[in-house]
Formats: sequence, structure tokens, C-alpha cells
Amino acid sequence: MIMKAFLDKDFLLNTEAAKVLFHEAAEKCPIIDYHCHLSPREIYEDIRYDNITQVWLGGDHYKWRLMRSAGVPEKYVTGDAPDYEKFLKYAEVLGKAIGNPLHHWSHLELRRFFGYDGILNKDTAPEVWKIANEKLQSEGYTSRGLIMMSNVDTICTTDDPIDSLEWHEKLAADKTFPVTVLPAWRPDKAMNLEKETLDYIAKLSEVSGVEIKTFADLKKAIAKRLDFFAAHGCTLSDHGLNYVMYAPAPDAEVERIFAARLAGKLPTAQEEAIFKYAFMLFVGAEYHDRGWVMQLHYGCRRDNNGPMFRKLGPDTGFDCVDNTAPSTETAAFLGALQDINKLPKTILYSLNTNDNAAIDTIIGCFQTDEAIGKIQHGSAWWFNDHFDGMTEQIKSLGSLGYLAGFVGMLTDSRSFLSYPRHEYFRRILCRVFGEWVEGGFYPEDMDTLKQIVADISYNNAKNYFNFQKKEI
Amino acid sequence: MIMKAFLDKDFLLNTEAAKVLFHEAAEKCPIIDYHCHLSPREIYEDIRYDNITQVWLGGDHYKWRLMRSAGVPEKYVTGDAPDYEKFLKYAEVLGKAIGNPLHHWSHLELRRFFGYDGILNKDTAPEVWKIANEKLQSEGYTSRGLIMMSNVDTICTTDDPIDSLEWHEKLAADKTFPVTVLPAWRPDKAMNLEKETLDYIAKLSEVSGVEIKTFADLKKAIAKRLDFFAAHGCTLSDHGLNYVMYAPAPDAEVERIFAARLAGKLPTAQEEAIFKYAFMLFVGAEYHDRGWVMQLHYGCRRDNNGPMFRKLGPDTGFDCVDNTAPSTETAAFLGALQDINKLPKTILYSLNTNDNAAIDTIIGCFQTDEAIGKIQHGSAWWFNDHFDGMTEQIKSLGSLGYLAGFVGMLTDSRSFLSYPRHEYFRRILCRVFGEWVEGGFYPEDMDTLKQIVADISYNNAKNYFNFQKKEI
Amino acid sequence: MIMKAFLDKDFLLNTEAAKVLFHEAAEKCPIIDYHCHLSPREIYEDIRYDNITQVWLGGDHYKWRLMRSAGVPEKYVTGDAPDYEKFLKYAEVLGKAIGNPLHHWSHLELRRFFGYDGILNKDTAPEVWKIANEKLQSEGYTSRGLIMMSNVDTICTTDDPIDSLEWHEKLAADKTFPVTVLPAWRPDKAMNLEKETLDYIAKLSEVSGVEIKTFADLKKAIAKRLDFFAAHGCTLSDHGLNYVMYAPAPDAEVERIFAARLAGKLPTAQEEAIFKYAFMLFVGAEYHDRGWVMQLHYGCRRDNNGPMFRKLGPDTGFDCVDNTAPSTETAAFLGALQDINKLPKTILYSLNTNDNAAIDTIIGCFQTDEAIGKIQHGSAWWFNDHFDGMTEQIKSLGSLGYLAGFVGMLTDSRSFLSYPRHEYFRRILCRVFGEWVEGGFYPEDMDTLKQIVADISYNNAKNYFNFQKKEI
Repeated sequence: MIMKAFLDKDFLLNTEAAKVLFHEAAEKCPIIDYHCHLSPREIYEDIRYDNITQVWLGGDHYKWRLMRSAGVPEKYVTGDAPDYEKFLKYAEVLGKAIGNPLHHWSHLELRRFFGYDGILNKDTAPEVWKIANEKLQSEGYTSRGLIMMSNVDTICTTDDPIDSLEWHEKLAADKTFPVTVLPAWRPDKAMNLEKETLDYIAKLSEVSGVEIKTFADLKKAIAKRLDFFAAHGCTLSDHGLNYVMYAPAPDAEVERIFAARLAGKLPTAQEEAIFKYAFMLFVGAEYHDRGWVMQLHYGCRRDNNGPMFRKLGPDTGFDCVDNTAPSTETAAFLGALQDINKLPKTILYSLNTNDNAAIDTIIGCFQTDEAIGKIQHGSAWWFNDHFDGMTEQIKSLGSLGYLAGFVGMLTDSRSFLSYPRHEYFRRILCRVFGEWVEGGFYPEDMDTLKQIVADISYNNAKNYFNFQKKEI
Repeated sequence: MIMKAFLDKDFLLNTEAAKVLFHEAAEKCPIIDYHCHLSPREIYEDIRYDNITQVWLGGDHYKWRLMRSAGVPEKYVTGDAPDYEKFLKYAEVLGKAIGNPLHHWSHLELRRFFGYDGILNKDTAPEVWKIANEKLQSEGYTSRGLIMMSNVDTICTTDDPIDSLEWHEKLAADKTFPVTVLPAWRPDKAMNLEKETLDYIAKLSEVSGVEIKTFADLKKAIAKRLDFFAAHGCTLSDHGLNYVMYAPAPDAEVERIFAARLAGKLPTAQEEAIFKYAFMLFVGAEYHDRGWVMQLHYGCRRDNNGPMFRKLGPDTGFDCVDNTAPSTETAAFLGALQDINKLPKTILYSLNTNDNAAIDTIIGCFQTDEAIGKIQHGSAWWFNDHFDGMTEQIKSLGSLGYLAGFVGMLTDSRSFLSYPRHEYFRRILCRVFGEWVEGGFYPEDMDTLKQIVADISYNNAKNYFNFQKKEI
Repeated sequence: MIMKAFLDKDFLLNTEAAKVLFHEAAEKCPIIDYHCHLSPREIYEDIRYDNITQVWLGGDHYKWRLMRSAGVPEKYVTGDAPDYEKFLKYAEVLGKAIGNPLHHWSHLELRRFFGYDGILNKDTAPEVWKIANEKLQSEGYTSRGLIMMSNVDTICTTDDPIDSLEWHEKLAADKTFPVTVLPAWRPDKAMNLEKETLDYIAKLSEVSGVEIKTFADLKKAIAKRLDFFAAHGCTLSDHGLNYVMYAPAPDAEVERIFAARLAGKLPTAQEEAIFKYAFMLFVGAEYHDRGWVMQLHYGCRRDNNGPMFRKLGPDTGFDCVDNTAPSTETAAFLGALQDINKLPKTILYSLNTNDNAAIDTIIGCFQTDEAIGKIQHGSAWWFNDHFDGMTEQIKSLGSLGYLAGFVGMLTDSRSFLSYPRHEYFRRILCRVFGEWVEGGFYPEDMDTLKQIVADISYNNAKNYFNFQKKEI
């Protein structure tokens, strides 16, 4: 065995076929990042960063978790330690983070954005700090610049129904920025009756102009906001669910649960399921009628560390896999929409990798000629965006479905430096294909293979979401 | 790395040891296909096919799912498009179905039955259509001929308790056909109270000559039919279950549930579990007393797409993995039979590959000297009959049990062209063994290894099911 | 591919990097076996064995299961067959046990303890019987000698709260034996209300000097015994749970359930969960206050074969994976301790490998600077101590956590011959690292890698458990 250099140009590409596929097909494709958590305001304002800690560690709960796991005091994670000291701590931990995708992601980011080809660890941290911070002060190292550097074609952010979309409007109007930035609809707050719903419902009433006293009113308000989002180019929704539930009940029961909640009474677990199911069934049909895509992200239990949640809020590194999603209910929910002929294009993502095969067999039950891969198994998500996780998702979809129709990668990220995750995904995809070709599992038909790689890297998403090039 | 040609004689055999094991042991073994869905009538009548679409795409819901997943309109799947156009569509999809076992199975079938060594895709489809159809008109290309070509020794079909077994009788009497064709007992309809049971119970009354007014009557009727099946050489049962349940209740409660159903009242979920458990406990003991094997297939949720089910019926490509089977109940069910000393030889198959380790540890709790591997973990089933699925089942059984006692592969198929799946399984088995030998995991004791390969390929099933060679 | 010899000095080490890491780092580390089921009395009494069957097959339910799975009559497993015949049967089965970790463990043990470099099978069994038995009569082949041969530094046994710890006292006082042997606290019997609790509670009352009439009394008694164990150097607890439950209820309800049990009434399933949760919350906080480590072993359903359980008792080879543990409850239990600032260092082990990712994400929610890897994912456990199981646990922890902080392997064994399982683990660890280095996944920084290997093999456990070298 000849040793491969760490993270060279053929990183992860262990066959000749993989190298050809990556360098001649995947690498050339622009990026469609159809699901992320970037701030449209930060894109519009084209912000700059004082140092690498700000742009790299500032809001990244993946990195925070890793640091805490290595015993780093919270002071250096989210506390008031100086930025340089935080960076040193991260560098020290990263140097020993063997097997963790952050080790790969971080080094890819240092190479692609900062031209640093070495290894980041406690010894090299001071040098990297200097190199990165100098770059951050040079031309193009702004939020927009980082996007442009990454060859990004289209971005979908994640937006609440009550959002004014003002930054999206400004971005759409700005002909100096060639990247398409679109809103994506994420109405979790309107559905999560078990949380602090009342203020939210009041705001939704105000924004929509519909006084919400019943579930029927809520649906009216939602429909108006859907139209508003559609008018701003939105074609995707997104939902964060514990699991995809099936809990049918008469309308009157749903209304009763909603009325009780408006009167201040929290739902029982069963009432919560009934309400959420009714909500999802409604919006699912609405998405269908608008030609939108419905994204369902599930299998996550959030905010498990009470004291830290109260101190830092959500999305700060205290979430875990929820392994309780019954595939029977997921299938029944999609079946209920199918029954009324209102099943939209749908992408299922579970944080629980054990759900891979269930998802790949569920999606096969609802495919039609409305799209290639009308129902999709989303790319390995969040904790699973690592080598094994992505490899398994790709192989499972291949074994059980039509991999060539896959819409591929997204970053799901809060950082402008995350685009190399698309590269990471594409390298893994090409590696899997290369191993199949060189192992005799698939013919060495490089033209077809390059086409499939380009489709999964770019074309399938373009067609599936029906994205248009921004006119400038 | 030297590239392997696609699907050559050493397909999947990536070590010298694997090549020796496959070519000198596995390949020579006849096939025992102890579980399939072939029609005994179609075997008896030795039918012919007009074209490859008829014999290859006609009833194959695996292929239908793949076509729908690739966006092919239903017209070309199960609709009224001409056979040639259907074939062209399948060929086009197959050409890009990288990673899917159908890509391997289809090409193995084209090679083994039609002598076509190329790649099927949209370009080659017309040529393949011509080659295959010519073959289908030549001598030996009948249902029986395809079986003979495949070196099949024994076939077990899947038969309902009310079946007259007339075609099995005719086959047994036909000394011109040397293959043993036996019925296997599948009494799902007698157990599934939640479905349209009443007509079925009426027919069972009639066929058995037992008027069924109570569960006790039902048991009497079942016992009579078991005797009838046994008299026709049956030694296997098969059950399709959502999960293997444990729901003990007094006899009176079971009788009450059954009586209510006869009176037209559908059972609740709990009543359904109680009834099915009582039913399974009864038949399990009956199998034990007759020396039969009990096959339990579970982890499937069927008919998820209502409109398509109503249009096309069951087994048309709309099923998925059910991930809700508690291993505790599976173990408790077997334990209950063990407690009354009536546990038969049993094979557990779950459609949910996450159940592999649970199954492999459950079976280890009930092994005795009644057989080598009295309780078996069945070969990777249905959706899981792919490279990774079979590999994982073999490795899991190896790690947790006594792999050398495994009864091996079955097709579970509705097609006369599916026998190369045995070859596929054997290649994978030899590949795993070869990697273990060449990686230093197991000694290079080729005699023992060939013996184990031959046992898993053929001898174990022969002994376990106690099949006898047909006298001709 | 060049074939590796079976079980040579580079067994499992398939890269140059792996060889260097194993031979220059892992191999040199002493063993800390922080969780096992050895008898402290047998250690103290420095016992000898008449033959290899006694020391090797006598209490090993792993081997019993394998034999039963291969159809060996119980007479040769736990019955009255002569020791030599039992050995012959095991040898015959082992020779064909391809893929089973016992094949590796057994051969490692024959090599390391008995100097036998061949293959054990039916042909070589008589020779091996002779060699091993001769060794067993020679100097050093006693319980203590086998420990010393294995370079063991520290052992934690598993002890009941009512244990007098007399053998631990004697071992601590014995300056001729340099190995630290410590008790570990396993209070399952005090918690398992669904079992035969009453006698046990009576004994606990007596031993603790606290008359136990209420749950509050039970807590007092437990606290006194914790102090007693702490005074004997105990720093670890261990719990065997079906799953880690979250079932909060008012104190009065817990008291009611406990009182009912004392009055002879068995708890319902819900009452059982409530009581166990209250118990675990109490002891968890106690562990925290004492600086102990809490080990939670779950995902097991025990004693599934009623007749055999009644004949042979527990831990005789009739257990299986329980796949019903909800990660949400595991996370909520740890969260409840965190909420009261009483979460101790904790190690989670599930017998269900599907829980790997859930565990690795749960532990990430509760890390602090109290320790490197304060909350740990325990090494692959019991049935999963095989090549694939260990590899997957290592890779999952790497992908989702901070692998470099892992406390590594334990035997969980009842045998003095099991220490090579540490070697097996270390070889697998080095193999994974070697593949990462030679595949370009991690830099070839051998100093850092050797440090991480030594940490996982030895240093991390030493620091995490705060073990002190025995003074002699």
C-alpha cells in the first residue's frame, strides 16, 4: 500500500476512476446550497470579520461540542476568553481530533479560503492565526466574497413565516451580486403548540392580517404567508420534527386542541401529535398546490442540557439523536397526502442513521413521473455529515433506490466557510463510484459516470427545485 | 489496484481464496430454493413467453419501483404501453442504476439465460430485445427449462391452507420432471383478523370440513389442513408479520375476539395482537409436532400507497420497512413455545437490517441438538438482497452465531429467471470468506473452507429441511 | 494482495502505520481492566486448575452458546460429560467457527498463555489438551499468575452492596501481589422491584444497620454502603438496565410503590419505571458527590429460555439484545441529573449497536471540563466485542465525539484467560488508525498518534478513574 498524503488534491480519491470523476466532473460544478442557515442580512451587508475566531468559531456548535468533549472550559468555548486564546484551544483539540469530520472540514477550509496547506494543531496555531487574519483583511474576504470564491450558484436560507423578507428583497434587487439567494419557509413555531406559541400566533396574526382564533384562521394566515414567500421566489419548505407523525382526528378535535392552547392550556403528548399531524397535512397539500418541495428533518431531540440551554439558548451544541421515529407513521403521513392526491415533492432526512433503509424504502412507495426521484432521501444530515455517514447514505440509496436521481448535498450551515462540505461530499461520492468501477460492480463507462456525478452534484437539484439563474 | 472487468467470471471475487472457494465449491452445488412465490401451475404447464418483457418485467415489482423512482410514467411500468417500449424504458433506467442490485441481477440473468455478455442500457436495448426474444423461442426456454438450466434440485412454493395442491399433486406424479417441487404453508389470511377475514373463514370451513364458529374450531380446521399439506410433502411454513408479537391472554379472551370478528367487528390493535399471538402459538406447536420449520418474515409495512393499491393490488411495489419490531417480544414468543417444549425449527427474517444483531442474539438463546442451527437467521430478505445487505447478514451471523450452520439463500421470487440470486449470494459469501482468509482472520485451510461453503450453499438446507430427492 | 498468516505477530495490522502504533505504543501499555466479573476470592486464593476445560470452558457462556448453536448436546456443554470430551466438542466447533470472535479470542489465549501457535480444531484437540494441561500444572499457572502474565495493573470486580468486601480487604493487605484489585458497586438487586426483592432488602437492612421500611430508608442504607465501598477504594458503579429510563413522579408516589412491594405486591411496568428512575437519580447524585464514575449497561433482555434458566440460572448463555431503548429517555435522565448539578462522570454501554450514534450524540450534550470525555461511550460490549463491533464503536465515537479521550477497553469477563481481549481491542484500534493514516484521512504524525494510542490503551482510564498504584 502506498500512503496517501493528508488532504492533497486527491483527498479521499483512492482509485483512478474516482480521480477522473472528481476532477473532470464533480469539481467543475457550481454549488447549489438549497438548505442553510445563513443570514440574508449578513449576505446583503457583505460583512467583514476581525479574525478567524469570529468567522470560524463564533457560531459553530459543532466545534463547541468537540472542544467541550476534550475537556476545554466553557470560557474558551462560548465564554469571555480572548479570541486568540479560543483559537489556540480549538487548534490544540483539533490536532488530536482523529476521526472527526471537523478535522477534515477545518483543514479543507484552511486550504480553500486561506491557502494554508499545513496541519493545524497546538504548534502551528500561532502561524495559522496570523495567516488567516491577514487574509481576512484582504480584498474579497467578506460574506459575499467567501460565497463567490466557492462558486456558489444558488442559496436558500431558512426563514420564518412572519419574516418580512426585506433582506431577500434587497438581495434580489442588487444586480451587483450574481448569486441567487432565496428564502425557504420554516413554520415550526406555528406548529409547536407545546412551546411558547401565543406570542408567535399574535405576531403571525399581525403580519398576515388574519385574526387567528381558530385552526381554520391559522390555516388562512399560513396560506397568505405562503403566497408572500412564493412571490419572493420561495420553492422550498423545511420542517424540524421529532418524528413524522400520523395521528388523524376529526377537525373538531383539532380545533378543540388549538382553542385550548390559545386559552393557555398545553397539549398532552397525544394532542400534540394530533395537532402537528393536522398542521403538516394542511401545509403538505399547500406545498403540492404551489409546486414546492417539502423538507422533513426529523430524529433529533434538542436542548438536552437544561442549564446550558438557559444560559446559551438553542443551537449551541446540546442536541442528540432521537431514535424513536416509527417508519410506519412516516409512511402513513405520506400515504395520507397521496390519498388526497396532494403529496408534494418531498425530502426526508433523519438524524438517526438507522432510518436509512426505512427512508429508502418509504420513498420508493410514492414515486411518480412528476419528477425524477419525486420523493428523496436527503443527504446525510448534521452529525452524520462525516465520511462513514455520507458513504452509508449514498450506498443505501443506491441499493434501495435510484441514486442517479439524487439531489445531493447541502450545507445546513450557519457559516460562510462551510462550502467545502460540498467538495467533501463530492469526493466521497466519487470515491464510492470509483470503488464500484474498479471492483467490477459497475462498468467502466466514464461518460455515463461523469454524467451521473454532475447530475448529483448540480443538475438534479437545479431541475428538482426548478431554480432559475438570477438575472443581472 | 488492477481494475476488475464488470461481471466477468470472477465477479465479486476479489481474492484468490474467494475464487477457489466459488469455482471449486459453491458453483458446483445444485440449488435448493426453499422459499419462493412461483406458481406450481406455471411449472406444471411448462409455459412459454412471447418476449423478455413478459418473463422479465411482467410481475417484478422490484423493477417497477426502480422505474418509478427514475420518473418513468406508470404507462410504461404496469400500463398499456407496448412490451417493446416498456423494455426500452427499463433498459434506459437500468443503465444508470448504479449501486442497485437490479443492475447486477439483471446482467447476471442476461448472461446466464440469454448468453448476452454486454451492458444493457438505452443504446443496447434493441439488440438485447432481439437476442433475448430469439432465445425465448428456442428449445428449453420454458418455465421448466429455465429451472433445469439453473441446476435446481428442490423448490418450495408458497401456498394457502385452502389450496387444493392439485398442481403439486400433478408435479409429484410427473416423472419427466426431476425437480422436487413442494408446497409451503402460508396461513396469513386465517390470522389477519384486521383484514377481510369472513369470506376466507367460510372457504376454510368448506375445504377443511370443519364448521368454524370458534377459535377452537379454527384450530381444528387448521390442523386438518396441516395434515393435508404434510401428506403432500410440506415441511415448511411461512408467516408474514408486522412484527413477532407477544400478547398472552386467557383463552376466553381470544375466543371473544374471534367471535366478535365473525360477527363483523374489527379488532382493536391490542385485540389483533392477542389473537395473532394465540394463533402463532398454536401453529408453532403444531409445526413442532410435525417436525416442520417455521419461517417468520417480519418488519414490513405493506400497501402504503392507497390509490396505487386500489388500482394494482398487493405486491406491486408499494411496501416499506417497518422499524417497530421489539426484540423483546420476538424473544418472548419463542420463549413461550420453549416453555411448553414446543418450539419448532425456526427461521427469523426481518426486513429491517437494524434487527440483524437482535436476531442473531435471540436465536442463540434457543439452540439445541435437535439440529445444527435449530433457530436460524434467514438470509438478507427482499430489499436487503443486495451486496451490502447480504454481506452484513453474513458477518453479523458470523460474529454472533455459528455461520457454518447457516441454511443459506432463497430467492423469494415470483420469476423463473431469479436463480442467479443464489449465485450472487454465493459469490458474496466466498468474497467474505476470501477477505477473512487473506486478511489473516481465518486460517488458509481450504478443505474446511470449501466444506463450509458447500454446506451453506446446499448441504445445510438439505439436512435442515430434510428434503428427499424426487424419485423418477 | 499478499496473504497474511493467521494470527501472527501482525494479526489485524494491515498497514505499516498500524504495525508501528501497535508494537511501539499499544503493546507496551499495562492493562487496566476497570470492569470485570472475576471473583476476588479466587484471586486471593491464587487457585489452580486441573485442566483447560475447567479454566477455559467452565463458566464461559459465550463458548456454551457457540456449542449449542452448532448442535452440540447440553451434556457436553454444561452437563456431566467428562472434561476431555467437552474440550473435544468445543475444539471441533471452534475449528469451523469462521467469523466468530471466539475463534480469535481462543487462539490468542492459546498463544499467549499456553504457547500454542497452531490451529485448534478436531484434529489438533488431543495435542492441545496435552500442552495446555501440562502448562496448567507448571509454576505461575494460577489465578494470580495468569493476571501477572498479562501485565495487568488494575482490576475492578463487580460487587453487591451487601458484600462484606472481605476478599478485597485481604487483597489490599497482601503486599506480595502488586496488582490493584478494587471493588465496583453494582446495586441492581436493590432496584429491581420486579424480582425477588424482599429477601435482599432484609439482608441490606442487616448489613447496613438501617431498618428499611421506606424508600427514604433504602436511600439511607445505600448511602452507608456507598461510604463503605468508598472506604475500600471503590470509584466505579455499574448498573444493568433494560434501558435508561426517564419517569419522574412525586416522592410520595415512589414511596407508595416501594411500600406496596414490601407488602408483597409486584409493580406494574409504569411503577417499575418510576421506581427505577427515582433510584437511579438518587444514586447518580451520590456518585457525583463522591467523584465516582457511573456505568450504565443497557439494551439486554436476559434469561429468555425459561427451562434452561430454571435449570442453570442466570448468565448461562440465554440473553439477547433488547432494541427498545429510547434515546430520548437516556438523554432526559442525564439531563435531570445535570439540572440539579449532580451529573457524575458516566459511561454508557448499549448491547444494541444501533444505539452507537445516539449514545455518541447524547454524551456530547453533557461534556464539561471536569474531565476529558466526562461522559463516555463505553467500548463495544459483550456480544459486540468482535472485529466489526469494536471497529464501528471506534469509528462512531471518532466521527461524533473526541476519540482521543476514550477510556478504552475492559474485559467484562468471568475468566482469568480473557486479557488478550485488550490486545484484540488495541490491534483493532491501531488498524483503524493505520487505515486512516495510509488512506490520507489523518496526517502521518506518528508521535501524536502513538500518544493517542497509549492514552486510549492506558492513560485515559488511569486519569479518568483516578486509579492509584498499589503500594507494596
